[in-house]
Amino acid sequence: MYRLLTVIGGFLISGCLFAQHPVGFYSKVDLNYVKANMEGNALLQQSLETLKNETDPWLDKAVDVPLPKDAAGGYSHEKHKANYLLLFNSGILYSITGKQAYANLVARVLLQYAKLIPGLKNHPQATSSSPGRIFWQALNDANWLVYTSMAYDMVYNGLKKSDRDIITSEVFKPEVDFITQDLKSWFNLIHNHAVWATAAVGLVGIATDNDDYIQLALKGSLRNGNTGFYALMGQLFSPDGYYTEGPYYTRYALLPFMIFANALNNKFPEQHLFQYRNSILEKALNTALQHTNTDGMFFPMNDAIKDKDYTTSEMLMALNVATKAYGVKPAYLFVAKKQGKVLLGKGGVQLAKAMVDKHAIPQWFPYTSIENTDGPTGKQGGLDILRLGNKAELASLIFKYTSHGLSHGHFDKLNINLFDAGKEILQDYGSARFVGVEQKYGGRYLPENGKYAVQTIAHNTLVVDETSHFKGEEKIAENYAPVKRFSALDNPNLLVTSAFDSNATAGVKMDRTIYFLQLPTSQKLMVDLFKVSSASQHQYDLPFHYLGQFIHANFSYQSSKTSMNILGKKNGYQYLWKEAEASVGNTTVQFSFMNGKTFYSLSSLIQDSAKLFFARSGANDSDFNLRHDPVFVIRKNANNQTFVNVLEIHGKYDPVIETSSGGNAAVQQISLLLDNQDLTIARVLINDKYLLICESRNNIEKTSQHQFEISGQKFEWIGPYAIFYNGRKL
Amino acid sequence: MYRLLTVIGGFLISGCLFAQHPVGFYSKVDLNYVKANMEGNALLQQSLETLKNETDPWLDKAVDVPLPKDAAGGYSHEKHKANYLLLFNSGILYSITGKQAYANLVARVLLQYAKLIPGLKNHPQATSSSPGRIFWQALNDANWLVYTSMAYDMVYNGLKKSDRDIITSEVFKPEVDFITQDLKSWFNLIHNHAVWATAAVGLVGIATDNDDYIQLALKGSLRNGNTGFYALMGQLFSPDGYYTEGPYYTRYALLPFMIFANALNNKFPEQHLFQYRNSILEKALNTALQHTNTDGMFFPMNDAIKDKDYTTSEMLMALNVATKAYGVKPAYLFVAKKQGKVLLGKGGVQLAKAMVDKHAIPQWFPYTSIENTDGPTGKQGGLDILRLGNKAELASLIFKYTSHGLSHGHFDKLNINLFDAGKEILQDYGSARFVGVEQKYGGRYLPENGKYAVQTIAHNTLVVDETSHFKGEEKIAENYAPVKRFSALDNPNLLVTSAFDSNATAGVKMDRTIYFLQLPTSQKLMVDLFKVSSASQHQYDLPFHYLGQFIHANFSYQSSKTSMNILGKKNGYQYLWKEAEASVGNTTVQFSFMNGKTFYSLSSLIQDSAKLFFARSGANDSDFNLRHDPVFVIRKNANNQTFVNVLEIHGKYDPVIETSSGGNAAVQQISLLLDNQDLTIARVLINDKYLLICESRNNIEKTSQHQFEISGQKFEWIGPYAIFYNGRKL
Repeated sequence: MYRLLTVIGGFLISGCLFAQHPVGFYSKVDLNYVKANMEGNALLQQSLETLKNETDPWLDKAVDVPLPKDAAGGYSHEKHKANYLLLFNSGILYSITGKQAYANLVARVLLQYAKLIPGLKNHPQATSSSPGRIFWQALNDANWLVYTSMAYDMVYNGLKKSDRDIITSEVFKPEVDFITQDLKSWFNLIHNHAVWATAAVGLVGIATDNDDYIQLALKGSLRNGNTGFYALMGQLFSPDGYYTEGPYYTRYALLPFMIFANALNNKFPEQHLFQYRNSILEKALNTALQHTNTDGMFFPMNDAIKDKDYTTSEMLMALNVATKAYGVKPAYLFVAKKQGKVLLGKGGVQLAKAMVDKHAIPQWFPYTSIENTDGPTGKQGGLDILRLGNKAELASLIFKYTSHGLSHGHFDKLNINLFDAGKEILQDYGSARFVGVEQKYGGRYLPENGKYAVQTIAHNTLVVDETSHFKGEEKIAENYAPVKRFSALDNPNLLVTSAFDSNATAGVKMDRTIYFLQLPTSQKLMVDLFKVSSASQHQYDLPFHYLGQFIHANFSYQSSKTSMNILGKKNGYQYLWKEAEASVGNTTVQFSFMNGKTFYSLSSLIQDSAKLFFARSGANDSDFNLRHDPVFVIRKNANNQTFVNVLEIHGKYDPVIETSSGGNAAVQQISLLLDNQDLTIARVLINDKYLLICESRNNIEKTSQHQFEISGQKFEWIGPYAIFYNGRKL
Repeated sequence: MYRLLTVIGGFLISGCLFAQHPVGFYSKVDLNYVKANMEGNALLQQSLETLKNETDPWLDKAVDVPLPKDAAGGYSHEKHKANYLLLFNSGILYSITGKQAYANLVARVLLQYAKLIPGLKNHPQATSSSPGRIFWQALNDANWLVYTSMAYDMVYNGLKKSDRDIITSEVFKPEVDFITQDLKSWFNLIHNHAVWATAAVGLVGIATDNDDYIQLALKGSLRNGNTGFYALMGQLFSPDGYYTEGPYYTRYALLPFMIFANALNNKFPEQHLFQYRNSILEKALNTALQHTNTDGMFFPMNDAIKDKDYTTSEMLMALNVATKAYGVKPAYLFVAKKQGKVLLGKGGVQLAKAMVDKHAIPQWFPYTSIENTDGPTGKQGGLDILRLGNKAELASLIFKYTSHGLSHGHFDKLNINLFDAGKEILQDYGSARFVGVEQKYGGRYLPENGKYAVQTIAHNTLVVDETSHFKGEEKIAENYAPVKRFSALDNPNLLVTSAFDSNATAGVKMDRTIYFLQLPTSQKLMVDLFKVSSASQHQYDLPFHYLGQFIHANFSYQSSKTSMNILGKKNGYQYLWKEAEASVGNTTVQFSFMNGKTFYSLSSLIQDSAKLFFARSGANDSDFNLRHDPVFVIRKNANNQTFVNVLEIHGKYDPVIETSSGGNAAVQQISLLLDNQDLTIARVLINDKYLLICESRNNIEKTSQHQFEISGQKFEWIGPYAIFYNGRKL
């Protein structure tokens, strides 16, 4: 990395001497390519028409540049947002058509900002530690700079020198100074905000030929490379492209990563920015796309809004730039088709040209099972996605053993989530926030986000003594990540991943292995071995946040009929109503629900005695900020305990023709044949046939040999685990 | 009607002398038309291929005819259902291809039934008053007969005489005897069950040349026409085609109506069956199609499953037969396209041929505002649908002042429902039932259906003293219907409907007028004037079952934080959790929620004092049979009370680009300027402009003249109502 920075430093001076524009969004070569290929392509012409239709009405109309006043969702916020998009689009249109009116529009609006910006203090709605000036938070100011600086660069040649000077000194300089000086520590974070902030400053540098800004952006305030854009590229991604904040923020960070990399690449093509860290940005995009459900929605790990999919403007821009950098790929064409439009940059033109051949676009996104590491060197845990089936029936099981994920991380070590047949089945609550809705706390994160959504009980993983992992303290959580034991994703009918954690709760070791299986009978099931070990007695709660209609439970329970209380008092429990509870002992309990057209049955081994709860979020929720979603909780008091849970995906319900089939669970009984610190052998009786899950904990070498005997029958296997069904090894 | 029956009676004998087959589903002429037009039409060929793919594997495979054992959703139920569809499809294939193997398949399976049926007693799962033999309820036996008798007729010419005799005497006769003798009173009902039962018996009559069966089916057991198919055609529909049980059951009844009418028409073409009662079946289908949301889902009035749309097999068959009878229409093509397939009968071929021209298929279903009467002579109230806007933004407001609607009716006089932008906004709970799901009480209506879903509090209309209309007694409810006062649906920006009821609660008159307006500012709003009059004091609850995310309330309330109780003890109230309550006085309260991408705000005039509740279904629900849906309730103790509620449809939220606009309600204040037994003048302040709603109650002639004066300004109008906005009459 060091070498690269030095070289860029050296290039900067020569770059300036021959400063030419555009060089930010477009290089001259890109622009020529775009112009040469616009003709005769319906999608490009349509995209151009759309831009014109949105932009042209403003050419001879006043554009309001209001005094900053409102939080997100309010008028001034939305207007400034609309303005930067208008300027960017106008820049594109100027570049392609050469029509001076578009440059004039950019000049006119930016000159209005030149009157507004120098006098701005912190925004009246500013509540965060990084207050903005044009917007309530500085992040939005950075968004604004990214787009307006690219717009400025695109119309540079159509601006009067005197206007350029005013815009540079009265618009860009005060904002850059504000971000890099007033908010210096924010600017130097390792966090998605800083990606936007450095991209903003760097793009202004490129647009205004200011080497100092570029240096600041690349190497941080101290200009030593410990912070700044390169540090962000180096530290926020694992070597395989997992972005440590999780997919929702990957989406958000990919735009400034890609767009600034593109501008740097235009300005310093010899530096091969897109190949940095073995093409880390390509890996980042590909990973982000794999971290989606079949409907394109990003998996809602950590703070995440569930409506976000890969058709967002950020992903549109990231995909288009990536296509220019890494070439046209079937997966990109699939996503571009869903996006329904392209940017009028080089990558967008490449996509549009390729999409003319309908057969080039795959019918389904090429999802695969993948494993990601976390952390800059890949040593802070990871995240695995186990995928069974395909097309509309694809099931994606997510096993999260990542590091905390910075300020948007949740306390959910060894969490699982399941998507199946397009639906979320075992859910992650996501975040408690209505982004962009002014009436809901100005679109900010709601209090219930920190108090419920980030807490462990809002996830599908173990809560010890009703206390969240790391006691819900980010500062502590940031220091640890679970450790992977093993995984194998190459057999499409037997997917497995395993990890353990000893830090989330002092004195308690959690060890979870997830098997995702398709039996020779075509039955799909997840086997979840969750082994907890402690020297002392604890209350262990294992929640399953199922989504769907309760169908049947094979145990009796007492339900809250005319009055109802909360499940607990703290750490998120106070947000759960206790709808029903049961006391059960030495049995296999089974609970079935239906979601969409499929049945799901969770069968749970109960050793000795346990309590079961059906609860639902929405208690203590005076502002009605939470969804009212159900959860099934298994509660066990013990020191050592191995939870064995089997989730079947089964049956088919067709509400239109009013038939269902296979609606009954096939699992009859679960037992533990052997369970010690070294070996666990679980047996599941399914339609009168045995499924055996054999796992070795201490000796997980691929060559390790194990054997055991049941009722005179010997079982032998090599490696950390083995599955036997009906006497045969899978 | 009498004349027609006599004439058909006369024709029967000659019909038998020249009995020829097929004549049930196909006439000879129809079949020739189908055969002549199959070539070269992709949809028809594809439909044929699908049928072959489903049927051919059974040609040389044993078909199980299991002993009746299971409730709906169970194996024997689903198998017998699959069997009748297999036989029907095999009949179609025999007719088109002439391949003997298809006739043999029908013969083979029906001969298996010939061994089973004569020994059958009531089904072991029979719980209803009309137990079945092959199925748990006789209704399913009738379904079975409808399809198998048509199959038998289609393959008649490919069957051996000896097999025909066995099937006639051992399959059809015992079932017809059972239905017409053992279940005589059920067979003679005026109800959707009887439509199936009479069609079944009549179609067996046509298939087996049994005039006696046809007479029974047409004229009922007493053969006097007071019951039977003609009585059903005469009494279940209003003159404009509203089916008294509501759209969910219209869907279900249209199949036997259409398919039996078609067979009768084939057999007795001179009788012009399809023109009976001014083409009542055409009106019925057109009305049913208008009673859907933009996604094709039937409005869920009365007992209704919300997943049902116009792509069900019943609607496919009804649409295809109607096309043969009434010709190809744009609306039919739209629906046929959504159905994605056609029946291989004459109407299906007509549809498939017309659909080759893509431009013939409209882009949107041609929805209109409509008013329907209820009852055979149209004098038992009615149902109006007020529609504002169009395409994806269409809003449909349903005002229900029908008669009870037989055994599936709900206690919901003067109920309203709203659909907007494809979503249900003010919901009708529909029915508590998981049809086809064996685990949920065998797919039957659940206890919570009668105890909650049918009760008044589960609807958007007034509950007096926590008691349902007619005290929840169907026998009483059946005797009354509300009375329409006036309506006007011709002005697309000012839709109005008004009706009153004096019977639902003794001593209480309810009078509701719904205005659905689009103001010159493009704002859409509903104004709901609900006037209640009584000589004595009562508790009036007006619920609004909104669907969506709570956004904001302009009043303070106490919410249930750590414990929660039920809203009431009986008549459905015991199923509602009280999440929050408020006491308010002399004000305009406002409550906003969001659904999809739109905001909705309900502003309510509070005179003197009132209580408000936010409640949610799901209490006392030990089997988790209910959805957990919210409701906002306005509670008022009074003798006379005029509720004025304004529901705005406003704003736009885009979760993908994270912006919202127009999220704040525009209504500022509601007041009643005048309110007596004759006149009501309500004033709504909207963005500093006044909307005046003027209504005359006693003098509702179109020529009636009214005037009043406010602050020196005179208002005059003619007719029962007038709306003034910003001083101008709309």
